[in-house]
Amino acid sequence: MSQEPRVVSITDLPTNEAKQVWITLRKIKYTDAEGHERLWEVAQRKTRKTSGIDAVAILAILKSKANSFPPSTVVVEQYRPPIDKFIVELPAGLIDEGETPEQAAIRELEEETGYKADSVIESSPILVSDPGMTNANMKLVVLNVTLEDKLETPDQKLESGEFIVRRVVELKELLNELKAYDSRGFILDARLHHLAAGYAMALNGV
Amino acid sequence: MSQEPRVVSITDLPTNEAKQVWITLRKIKYTDAEGHERLWEVAQRKTRKTSGIDAVAILAILKSKANSFPPSTVVVEQYRPPIDKFIVELPAGLIDEGETPEQAAIRELEEETGYKADSVIESSPILVSDPGMTNANMKLVVLNVTLEDKLETPDQKLESGEFIVRRVVELKELLNELKAYDSRGFILDARLHHLAAGYAMALNGV
Repeated sequence: MSQEPRVVSITDLPTNEAKQVWITLRKIKYTDAEGHERLWEVAQRKTRKTSGIDAVAILAILKSKANSFPPSTVVVEQYRPPIDKFIVELPAGLIDEGETPEQAAIRELEEETGYKADSVIESSPILVSDPGMTNANMKLVVLNVTLEDKLETPDQKLESGEFIVRRVVELKELLNELKAYDSRGFILDARLHHLAAGYAMALNGV
Repeated sequence: MSQEPRVVSITDLPTNEAKQVWITLRKIKYTDAEGHERLWEVAQRKTRKTSGIDAVAILAILKSKANSFPPSTVVVEQYRPPIDKFIVELPAGLIDEGETPEQAAIRELEEETGYKADSVIESSPILVSDPGMTNANMKLVVLNVTLEDKLETPDQKLESGEFIVRRVVELKELLNELKAYDSRGFILDARLHHLAAGYAMALNGV
């Protein structure tokens, strides 16, 4: 039976306890541009594999060979405990050991949305999500998903305990759809919003 | 005398020590969609003020009344200890107590770049930068900077110990400029890159 997830409690997490799981705090000593020694604090994932990149986000470009629907993408909705809300994001996931970012992107897209990519359009350089606070990094991978005719809705391949809703959105309507999500109480991922805002600005001739 | 910043050491940071500064780890107990109690770890800033929003990023739209230069924006380059590289980002900063996000955006834009905004075009909804790992949130504020004629380069208003280089970039060239930064060894902020990628996609008719 499905129910609304909710936070039960939030408590301090000692670093020595956190070591056993997937996140930790580190203290960085560095010298600045004037040679002064200074301190900085950083949160780090402990899950990074030998690729050196934590994660990928996927911008899938869904097109119809028969032009049965306009160029679209797919976003996902999921509950995120750090925010205690449902977040709207690009499909995304951590890179497994031995995987390239592009392989991870194709795998995660199919798991989270059911769509199978037929080619990689582009991979971004390494990007950092919040470089004042964490060392978390990622790549944005743009994938082609070409459908024969009408929009299909293949089965997702979620793991047990994963609750992800996918939604196909016309690219030209992406920013408007995000604003509608916001007005319904969803929270928007910053990276997805910036992509949509850039797209809309160029369409509107800014 | 200016020199290249560099990391001297990275060590574990016990949570009780981190409490005295600006970042901490918390453990979240929550119930999932099937009613199962589960745990999640989150990194939190300790600096959030009563606005409930950590930070703003600023997209400044620089225009000339005399059309002396094409619509442009301004990005900043700064060394970020968590990454140990120079990062290219939108101007950004934390929201002070008593400030609105828009006031913080106008203040930070002038401090980091010298440019004075003459109006607010738009403020985004609350955005989350990496919602699987942190509760960090922000708004993207789009500001008008109207110049009489040619591009001016007003003095920045940096605090002692702040080392930020600003650079004006034509909007239509933003993604190409970011790719050039990447090839020179800079690391790109994910939010800035997603905005530029969306802008370029729409320009190219994707």
